[in-house]
Amino acid sequence: MRVEIWSDIACPWCYIGKARFEKGLAGFAHRDGVEVVHRSFELDPGRAKGDTVQVTDMLAAKYGRGADEVRAMEEHVATQARSEGLGYRSEGRDHGSTFDIHRLLHLARARGRQNELLDLAYRANFAEERSVYDDGTLVRLAVEAGLAETEVREVLADPDAYADAVRDDEREAAELGANGVPFFVFDRRIGVSGGQPAEVFTQALEQAWGSRTTVTMVGAGAGSGEVSGEAGGEVCDTDGACAVPASKSGPASDPASAQAGAPS
Amino acid sequence: MRVEIWSDIACPWCYIGKARFEKGLAGFAHRDGVEVVHRSFELDPGRAKGDTVQVTDMLAAKYGRGADEVRAMEEHVATQARSEGLGYRSEGRDHGSTFDIHRLLHLARARGRQNELLDLAYRANFAEERSVYDDGTLVRLAVEAGLAETEVREVLADPDAYADAVRDDEREAAELGANGVPFFVFDRRIGVSGGQPAEVFTQALEQAWGSRTTVTMVGAGAGSGEVSGEAGGEVCDTDGACAVPASKSGPASDPASAQAGAPS
Repeated sequence: MRVEIWSDIACPWCYIGKARFEKGLAGFAHRDGVEVVHRSFELDPGRAKGDTVQVTDMLAAKYGRGADEVRAMEEHVATQARSEGLGYRSEGRDHGSTFDIHRLLHLARARGRQNELLDLAYRANFAEERSVYDDGTLVRLAVEAGLAETEVREVLADPDAYADAVRDDEREAAELGANGVPFFVFDRRIGVSGGQPAEVFTQALEQAWGSRTTVTMVGAGAGSGEVSGEAGGEVCDTDGACAVPASKSGPASDPASAQAGAPS
Repeated sequence: MRVEIWSDIACPWCYIGKARFEKGLAGFAHRDGVEVVHRSFELDPGRAKGDTVQVTDMLAAKYGRGADEVRAMEEHVATQARSEGLGYRSEGRDHGSTFDIHRLLHLARARGRQNELLDLAYRANFAEERSVYDDGTLVRLAVEAGLAETEVREVLADPDAYADAVRDDEREAAELGANGVPFFVFDRRIGVSGGQPAEVFTQALEQAWGSRTTVTMVGAGAGSGEVSGEAGGEVCDTDGACAVPASKSGPASDPASAQAGAPS
């Protein structure tokens, strides 16, 4: 089963929601059969690279509130984060364009290192207050996640690298009706919006797992409805023969139209 | 969208079916949005490592036919392969346990090199008549596919490495009702059995694509049926705010329960 998670590194509920999802996954009996894919969603897609501000200043300006109130807002989120065992420093964090981080997360996915990079980027942004908005930090995080430095620098230097992958993810989120993140989709059957309690994720996993083998066959020989063992086309089967479709009498009894891949 | 393909390297219809699928994919408008995952299916799971025989000898013994008849059977498959532009040598091929190849294909998947390794292994087995049943060839193929030699040797030396991944794939194939391969599943909605014509794959891709955003929301705030933009839980949205669920009046107007991830 596959779980797709749309998120943004700038989104505290994504950071917290990931921990809650992972707690829900830990409570799911078939967790070893679950693959997780992280997908891109920029909360602030209009922000230019290099246009970086302090989160607290941005919050104060946006809501017209003083520093104390902003700190209280951040502390509320920090409390939620800490209750999930996550570090969260409520001051000194930067806010900027996350496009390059998303591009690197796609590179990391292609190299089997996506979850590692995402965890390191979240920790850097929320717990360590390292700015994830400069190339130097991004390179260090990506190398720490197991990527090759040369390849990381090439991706950062080429604004088109994985740019379409980021935009495709964002288009798909819109098609799925996701206006915010985190947004979780289980085998394209079940969706969960937001950083919900771990039990909700366990329930969604169980529901999606239960229906994961309900597939409609199409093509030659396909019956309607559920999967049939004899759905047509040219197959090699576990009886030991590779038949051509003309061999309706059964491949093993008609060697002229069979070719073996696995004799018993 | 994700396509899962169960196959075995020993299966000529898998080799041919992969080419037909890829032709079907090339004719699909949204091909750039399709991810392909190759899954394990051993046609001859009982065969021990090192127990390798000539395919033609095995066919002759299995069907009690002479060398000429066996050659005719193989030539039939070869004709189909060549019509797809694939090399196929009908004599001199080995047959053996494919368990280690499947384990390496899982390693390759984790490193983003699965398709490369599968193509090289198919070509070695069917077109070049290199035996894919000895470790030396497997190491060379895996390195050629872009894997690190040390890691490949470690996996080959440890029979447990990725063994569960192979068996999980095979269990899932059984649950899906697949008795033979190749077996194609599109977003866990649509299935195709066998090496069918390219048009069948294009049709399956189109059908699965059309329904890929039909997701049922669960959890707090989820309505029944289709995705809702306000499905509940704590989200950061593109309006620029990260709300807590208590903020039912809307995050942007209630800064005390909001924390910004993306101001506009």
